[in-house]
Amino acid sequence: MEITAEQSLLIIQRIAAKAREIKIPVTIVVVDTAGHIKSLQRMDDALLGSIDIAMAKAKTAMLFRNNTESVGEWFTPDAKNYGIMNTNGGVVGFKGGMPVRSGDQIIAYIGVSGGTSDQDFEIASAGSKF
Amino acid sequence: MEITAEQSLLIIQRIAAKAREIKIPVTIVVVDTAGHIKSLQRMDDALLGSIDIAMAKAKTAMLFRNNTESVGEWFTPDAKNYGIMNTNGGVVGFKGGMPVRSGDQIIAYIGVSGGTSDQDFEIASAGSKF
Amino acid sequence: MEITAEQSLLIIQRIAAKAREIKIPVTIVVVDTAGHIKSLQRMDDALLGSIDIAMAKAKTAMLFRNNTESVGEWFTPDAKNYGIMNTNGGVVGFKGGMPVRSGDQIIAYIGVSGGTSDQDFEIASAGSKF
Amino acid sequence: MEITAEQSLLIIQRIAAKAREIKIPVTIVVVDTAGHIKSLQRMDDALLGSIDIAMAKAKTAMLFRNNTESVGEWFTPDAKNYGIMNTNGGVVGFKGGMPVRSGDQIIAYIGVSGGTSDQDFEIASAGSKF
Repeated sequence: MEITAEQSLLIIQRIAAKAREIKIPVTIVVVDTAGHIKSLQRMDDALLGSIDIAMAKAKTAMLFRNNTESVGEWFTPDAKNYGIMNTNGGVVGFKGGMPVRSGDQIIAYIGVSGGTSDQDFEIASAGSKF
Repeated sequence: MEITAEQSLLIIQRIAAKAREIKIPVTIVVVDTAGHIKSLQRMDDALLGSIDIAMAKAKTAMLFRNNTESVGEWFTPDAKNYGIMNTNGGVVGFKGGMPVRSGDQIIAYIGVSGGTSDQDFEIASAGSKF
Repeated sequence: MEITAEQSLLIIQRIAAKAREIKIPVTIVVVDTAGHIKSLQRMDDALLGSIDIAMAKAKTAMLFRNNTESVGEWFTPDAKNYGIMNTNGGVVGFKGGMPVRSGDQIIAYIGVSGGTSDQDFEIASAGSKF
Repeated sequence: MEITAEQSLLIIQRIAAKAREIKIPVTIVVVDTAGHIKSLQRMDDALLGSIDIAMAKAKTAMLFRNNTESVGEWFTPDAKNYGIMNTNGGVVGFKGGMPVRSGDQIIAYIGVSGGTSDQDFEIASAGSKF
């Protein structure tokens, strides 16, 4: 099951509502399970640097079917996965990217950027279940 | 005056409504007057190739403050502007990208792709006035 | 309020005067608040490597609305923001990039490179208030 | 003899004066004989697309030690130099890029963009002799 535009917009609304609640303007990206962008919304006053980071988080989560902070464990110096961060056109390993699940199934991936990575995680989580 | 997220979503709704009316699924991109993406929506069943084309149309319209088909006149062999299409990371000169005006002022640029360039133009035009 | 060419040249003059005073030839870049370059000046005898670094500093400061050394705190190993430095086409986290303020408002961003990062910071600071 | 920052600024002033005279806001780029940027000035209200085009013109003139419209003769379909426009990271073959001469010697190259190619040529010519 592939995400619909209607679902994607609803996910963005939920995430944006959470962002407004904690007063952190963010960029929100939704990609399908193949990584192709479905929806993007940059909230007013979000940092311009958040656009590319939100895209990178959604892409990374999709590439490894996982939360970005979990992927980040492969990026530590101890993991010795030299160069892995440069693959796939550049990936990121910190909070803010995750799958969107409907029941057990992943229907999309989201990326949020604009606050600290903890804030981005909290905000993105508002859109991770459908 | 810079476009707000609320305005941007309304523009996307108007354009998507027109696209549904003529039954052409498209990708819709809204960028601010400096070219930074504000909103993107890929309608269900839109061609995957439409994402990058919609982005390129919005970017080109922004770079030259003009409709993409007008910019395209500089790209004809007769114009002899050799290489101009490769500048700015690649630009496009066919219908589907245009300014969004509020009165006399340009507040954003839009790019639409998914149908023929005539269809893309018709669909995008539904969002060109605010 | 967007920076004018006249203001931008004045900022470059102030920064270049400081650079001459402490005898460090630098490249100076001024970008608008959306990151588009407004002015650039490479002083005589500045390192050729300083051009791209000055651009990267101005861009990074713009993307995160902050001094580059503050952005750099997110890039330490302890911050664990793996891959963040590769986003946005590559960003930098050391002294020499900062906002230009007119009162409370940011009207542009500057990047200076050519000396040590402490020297670059001192030189750039001569242009940070308008 | 390599161009100095003082000369470069003077060239930009002369070109900008001409641009104001004919009321076409442009971006002006000066590169040294090795192609490294020395000065850039984007005039108020110049098209954002003019930045990269001005850079491309100055670069192309430098690469071939010639006016860009002369280089453009190698880019016509009849010349059959297939792919030449994609070399050197992309070159352009229309008016607006040219050498700056001091007597017989080339001391720099300039690129101007923002108007028609004829206007860009007229404006750039104001800075082609030193």
